[in-house]
Amino acid sequence: MIVTDLKVGILGGGQLGKMLCIAAAPWHLELFVMDKSADFPAAPYCHHFTEGDFNSEEEVIAFGETLDIITIEIEGVSIKGLHKLKSMGKTVIPDPDFLEIVRDKGRQNAFYRDLGVPTVGFSSFDSLKELEKVIEVGNIRFPFVWKSRFEGYDGRGVKLVKRAEDLKGLPEGPCISEDLVSIEKELALIVSRNSKGEKGLFDPVEMVFDSRANLLDHLQFPAGIPERIAEQMKQIAETIVDKVGFRGLLAIEFFLTTDGQLLVNEMAPRPHNSGHHTIECCATSQYEQLLRTVLDLPPGDTAASRKGIMYNLLGSPGYTGPARLKGVEQLFATEDAHLHWYGKKQTRPFRKMGHILLAGSDMGVLRERMERLREGLRVVV
Amino acid sequence: MIVTDLKVGILGGGQLGKMLCIAAAPWHLELFVMDKSADFPAAPYCHHFTEGDFNSEEEVIAFGETLDIITIEIEGVSIKGLHKLKSMGKTVIPDPDFLEIVRDKGRQNAFYRDLGVPTVGFSSFDSLKELEKVIEVGNIRFPFVWKSRFEGYDGRGVKLVKRAEDLKGLPEGPCISEDLVSIEKELALIVSRNSKGEKGLFDPVEMVFDSRANLLDHLQFPAGIPERIAEQMKQIAETIVDKVGFRGLLAIEFFLTTDGQLLVNEMAPRPHNSGHHTIECCATSQYEQLLRTVLDLPPGDTAASRKGIMYNLLGSPGYTGPARLKGVEQLFATEDAHLHWYGKKQTRPFRKMGHILLAGSDMGVLRERMERLREGLRVVV
Repeated sequence: MIVTDLKVGILGGGQLGKMLCIAAAPWHLELFVMDKSADFPAAPYCHHFTEGDFNSEEEVIAFGETLDIITIEIEGVSIKGLHKLKSMGKTVIPDPDFLEIVRDKGRQNAFYRDLGVPTVGFSSFDSLKELEKVIEVGNIRFPFVWKSRFEGYDGRGVKLVKRAEDLKGLPEGPCISEDLVSIEKELALIVSRNSKGEKGLFDPVEMVFDSRANLLDHLQFPAGIPERIAEQMKQIAETIVDKVGFRGLLAIEFFLTTDGQLLVNEMAPRPHNSGHHTIECCATSQYEQLLRTVLDLPPGDTAASRKGIMYNLLGSPGYTGPARLKGVEQLFATEDAHLHWYGKKQTRPFRKMGHILLAGSDMGVLRERMERLREGLRVVV
Repeated sequence: MIVTDLKVGILGGGQLGKMLCIAAAPWHLELFVMDKSADFPAAPYCHHFTEGDFNSEEEVIAFGETLDIITIEIEGVSIKGLHKLKSMGKTVIPDPDFLEIVRDKGRQNAFYRDLGVPTVGFSSFDSLKELEKVIEVGNIRFPFVWKSRFEGYDGRGVKLVKRAEDLKGLPEGPCISEDLVSIEKELALIVSRNSKGEKGLFDPVEMVFDSRANLLDHLQFPAGIPERIAEQMKQIAETIVDKVGFRGLLAIEFFLTTDGQLLVNEMAPRPHNSGHHTIECCATSQYEQLLRTVLDLPPGDTAASRKGIMYNLLGSPGYTGPARLKGVEQLFATEDAHLHWYGKKQTRPFRKMGHILLAGSDMGVLRERMERLREGLRVVV
């Protein structure tokens, strides 16, 4: 190995793990990956794949104890396992203490508030019952947004609550209530930081959501926002990573409200869907950037070389089974269009099966290309 | 598999095979690779690696007979094996007949002449003895360039002959004599063509050679030549691939003489050192472009997104053994600098161990960065 003699492992072998492996390939970096099955996306592209359950404390420890550095491509791993590896002297990226904050939406929001970072007004509850009591005494204003404190993502664990009855059927567990804000744009920014405090800040992207699946519909890079907002986002990102001495890669999602306020929504300390475009559009990809912080190298150049639109290839409704992509001929005939097919064996409705990146210099042209492509391109069985 | 259900194999698992595998990864294309050892660069990045000798007719057939399409990353494979696979109905890219022309420098030059493509004046001989006879009767003008007809590359198999005595010690085998031309620039261009005749033409690059090692010193993209010359190169490339109905990827090297003549020097029907920059600098890389012709897809967009300088990381003189790269800290601190480390276990003097790609918008700045980097970056043991 040439860049490092350290052994680096990744918990999670999904598409993000796969793209980390592809980013590591030009350096011939010998990566170790653990996930449930060698059928998973990253397996063919890492040097060593271990079949195992990253939710199991024992299996995380067994995987990590032979390595020097352990990082993640998914938050839902055994934090106990990570703490144990840290106590054994392993470098764990992100730090498990930070990961605990991120995984609890209540603690995460309190973290923003304590740092003085603008976020959505919220209250945190240990159970749904507790929230219901507050409603009974009239200490909350409708409508508000209910969010599960744990394991909510891609729209799961979120509900708009217009009246008390809307709480019926929600999980009993810890939750938060968030003020309903009027969103003009959803934005994201990715920042990296190494142990020396050297940071790499990518330009912000803009996300457009599909209300039906409540999943990212497409991503536009760079975001269509004034420079002032972009600067504010970068300052917030720097504040967050510097205050906690963060090491790793952090994706931060923001709301820009209709009255011009910039609020942090949530964050993920790993490669993120909102950074896929960096592969084609930036001098350094988010994946290489994470590898750089893992090896404690200086951040790579984040300069944009061109504009981009990214959209996910989701499993079409009504199809479950071995995946097939319909309409590739048109895709391959489209200028500067890039297929990322994750290699998941089975498709199911709205499952993320891949993404398309359209690169170029004119956002209007890219948008037209996306619309044309979408008519024909379908994940079916 | 999503892009194709065909099984694709590559003969050769060196750096070019590795970069083909990396290019195939976003499509999750299941590639089969054969080369001598699973220690070779491509092994960790292909889906199936077979240890075998691509010079052996039997082993090439055994490898290819379970596949649908076979391509190469190196010319020196068993052509008999390829002919046999073709006769079995396999798609072989490039066509073995074309590969035979390319591998014989005498036939290759005759091929250019017969097509009306400008090339260096030459005579072809079946042995050194035959050439010596022609000299004896005074039918050749000194100085000329002696070239071995077979297996000459990277400066091996080439000698400047100023007088008859200079032939002493040269191999007895088939050779050619070429007129000595006064070279202003060495240029290269990569063209792809599928079975429908759809072509992808990259912009020309300019190569600067290191006279000591007689290896590429660095490559500049785009070449510093008038548009008129670039157009002429593209026309020649189109002529060559169209006239023979070529399918695959073809790198063509040219001389631009001091009196302004453009002459074809040689060609290689596979990914080429002179196309490494396409990974970072073009919408589609030469590697993806070959995969597209292999799958008979339309060519990818060849537009340049930025300028680039590529230079090879060669084994330093005096060092043989397990490779180490000295000076990586400076490399990782350099803007838009990309390390490609091939992962060969052993270094030896002038062995190609990797390459550096510097991307940006100002060629002068890129050249300065290269000079600074080179002072510190060394392949040692």
